[in-house]
Amino acid sequence: MLGNYIENVRKNVPLVHNITNYVTVNDVANVLLACGGSPIMSDEPEDVEDITSICGGLNINIGTLNRRSIEGMYRAGHRACELGHVVLLDPVGAGASALRTNTAAGLMKELRLTAIRGNISEIRTLAFGSGTTRGVDADVADAVTEATLDEAVRFARDFAAKAGAIIAITGAIDLVADAERCYVIRNGRPEMGGITGTGCQLSGMMTAFLVANPKAHLDAAAAAVCAMGLAGEIGWDRMQEGDGNSAYRGRIIDAIYNMDGAVLDAGAKYEIR
Amino acid sequence: MLGNYIENVRKNVPLVHNITNYVTVNDVANVLLACGGSPIMSDEPEDVEDITSICGGLNINIGTLNRRSIEGMYRAGHRACELGHVVLLDPVGAGASALRTNTAAGLMKELRLTAIRGNISEIRTLAFGSGTTRGVDADVADAVTEATLDEAVRFARDFAAKAGAIIAITGAIDLVADAERCYVIRNGRPEMGGITGTGCQLSGMMTAFLVANPKAHLDAAAAAVCAMGLAGEIGWDRMQEGDGNSAYRGRIIDAIYNMDGAVLDAGAKYEIR
Amino acid sequence: MLGNYIENVRKNVPLVHNITNYVTVNDVANVLLACGGSPIMSDEPEDVEDITSICGGLNINIGTLNRRSIEGMYRAGHRACELGHVVLLDPVGAGASALRTNTAAGLMKELRLTAIRGNISEIRTLAFGSGTTRGVDADVADAVTEATLDEAVRFARDFAAKAGAIIAITGAIDLVADAERCYVIRNGRPEMGGITGTGCQLSGMMTAFLVANPKAHLDAAAAAVCAMGLAGEIGWDRMQEGDGNSAYRGRIIDAIYNMDGAVLDAGAKYEIR
Repeated sequence: MLGNYIENVRKNVPLVHNITNYVTVNDVANVLLACGGSPIMSDEPEDVEDITSICGGLNINIGTLNRRSIEGMYRAGHRACELGHVVLLDPVGAGASALRTNTAAGLMKELRLTAIRGNISEIRTLAFGSGTTRGVDADVADAVTEATLDEAVRFARDFAAKAGAIIAITGAIDLVADAERCYVIRNGRPEMGGITGTGCQLSGMMTAFLVANPKAHLDAAAAAVCAMGLAGEIGWDRMQEGDGNSAYRGRIIDAIYNMDGAVLDAGAKYEIR
Repeated sequence: MLGNYIENVRKNVPLVHNITNYVTVNDVANVLLACGGSPIMSDEPEDVEDITSICGGLNINIGTLNRRSIEGMYRAGHRACELGHVVLLDPVGAGASALRTNTAAGLMKELRLTAIRGNISEIRTLAFGSGTTRGVDADVADAVTEATLDEAVRFARDFAAKAGAIIAITGAIDLVADAERCYVIRNGRPEMGGITGTGCQLSGMMTAFLVANPKAHLDAAAAAVCAMGLAGEIGWDRMQEGDGNSAYRGRIIDAIYNMDGAVLDAGAKYEIR
Repeated sequence: MLGNYIENVRKNVPLVHNITNYVTVNDVANVLLACGGSPIMSDEPEDVEDITSICGGLNINIGTLNRRSIEGMYRAGHRACELGHVVLLDPVGAGASALRTNTAAGLMKELRLTAIRGNISEIRTLAFGSGTTRGVDADVADAVTEATLDEAVRFARDFAAKAGAIIAITGAIDLVADAERCYVIRNGRPEMGGITGTGCQLSGMMTAFLVANPKAHLDAAAAAVCAMGLAGEIGWDRMQEGDGNSAYRGRIIDAIYNMDGAVLDAGAKYEIR
């Protein structure tokens, strides 16, 4: 049961270093607090090594990358790897620009990543390069649907094996895979796409779940995905007349704040393939 | 009727590249989603040309400009112009510092802007230079009121003709002008000034309206202004005991989220001069 | 009575220049508007001198410092000092990295600070250096509790004398001291720690209170601390079933928005030692 993994976050209060975009950074900080973690943000190359040293995990999000913060990502990443910390990469916009694609690929190459979380397009870019699909594996479709699920699961597991990292592909159906197992998760609501940053929030929260559950990384990553999707469901149920995406944003974070292991266990919808 | 222009945003889902300040960036992203657009943020000079190429419009806001992001504004702006994209300038704080005044003036000179949106003080600075009023045109008053409306309308149209761009001056009364016509808009509430970023949000949203309505730029820009003001009215009506500017901020974005063409048509308050 | 000091903010509408982190900057801007002030953000070295010149106070927060913004802090700080403006330092994370510790110490040395606001760990770092406790004064405990209150009050007054600035130490019990008097404040709720940025917000608001009350800096700083804590209490009372830290964040800013002198006088809980 996945409920245990959020309980461990609340028990251990993992400190997470975030190098993240300035669009959604406040929500990332608040969702980390909501799930029981503790956030620190720092992207200056001269600052990041000290900061990451006192944390348990590093969440690298390239959403508004710049030359300075990219250097910060590498320096923080190398130090975090030396210390055996959890390192998660959120390759926001990989495939949309050369700088993003190359930065994500470079970080993947140089760092021992614990997990990579993105949408199918971003993950495909990392797997096949340059955003264009090439070769046999390129058969994986542009969206994970019931019709393409088998090939997507195979792709996720294969890429996890190749990358040596947990691969989390989020969308209408979420996949969380290592080389052997793949969680197929059906929590969440389409209206979550009407809010900026639910993916960024999930990456921050997943980092906390990984830090707090060192012996069960795959299950903990899946628990974070279920928690985020379930919060989207609970938050939606609390929507009132006249509410929109701004209210929904707050209600999702609030649902995480109030979620305990029992709620997560009762609401998580997943199978393992 | 202006309702059609928001419907076109929802239909076309225009992708808008924002180089915007880090104070209000999250609200800009969420209001773009709320009105039916799709936001991307990027300000790194090495990243912006790729990003703007996949978008339909560029929203340049100088609210927390720095040397790096200014270079990003020029590079993105030039590429967007080459591609015939919509380019909007929000000259936040023009007149308050030399760097802001010069950056806004430089962007105006080098780029073919589709629209410029600011308060009367910022627009006057662009029109007359250096924030000080000079010459005959300088008779335009410091605020657009019923008493100064005629001269303000003339000023807006004249400056639109000179700048070759739509000029949107927002305040108690809003003006949206090209060389020939000027919308005079009386939507909105004074309490909107108690929230940071309603102007920035409007600039983002206006960019989406312009992209989605290529054959009616002036009307689309006016529709965006009416939509924002009307959302301020609808949001205020939903305020509850104990609510303040934070709740109001959310309620305005929510009102945009729930606004369709019929609501906008029914609530838009404007005349054309 | 402290109520007068918030009334003066609403009357004078002090313009506050903030060089602050990008995590909580939107909340800082909105809380400044909520209390009656007016916020401007700028961190570019070429921009800050002009901007700070038109303001009444400068709020320096090192939460996401970088090489460029550090230069901005010094340049803005020097100009603000020349002009006799209020300058407040929020040494976020001092003690957690060498860059933060050294930047906070350097700003303290070079600038004539009006006030320093941080948690006990950050303030200890500034008082004793490097985050490690040294010498006799180092007996001050790691948290301000009823048991350690006497020594903490003595520490705050001594450090205020040495620093030549008001020292505000916030936590379960808040201390606001100059060399002679120390306010001991018992407003607030522990759940405020579950929101990112209540400290940053307080620093912004305190700067506005200091600017608007030039003849009573200590009392005005204490009033800001009471106002923030009281808003935390009022906001909590308005929490509804299912609300969490996101809703709480908004309710606190809303409580500031609705707070007048009479509410602050009735709710402020403090003694002077």
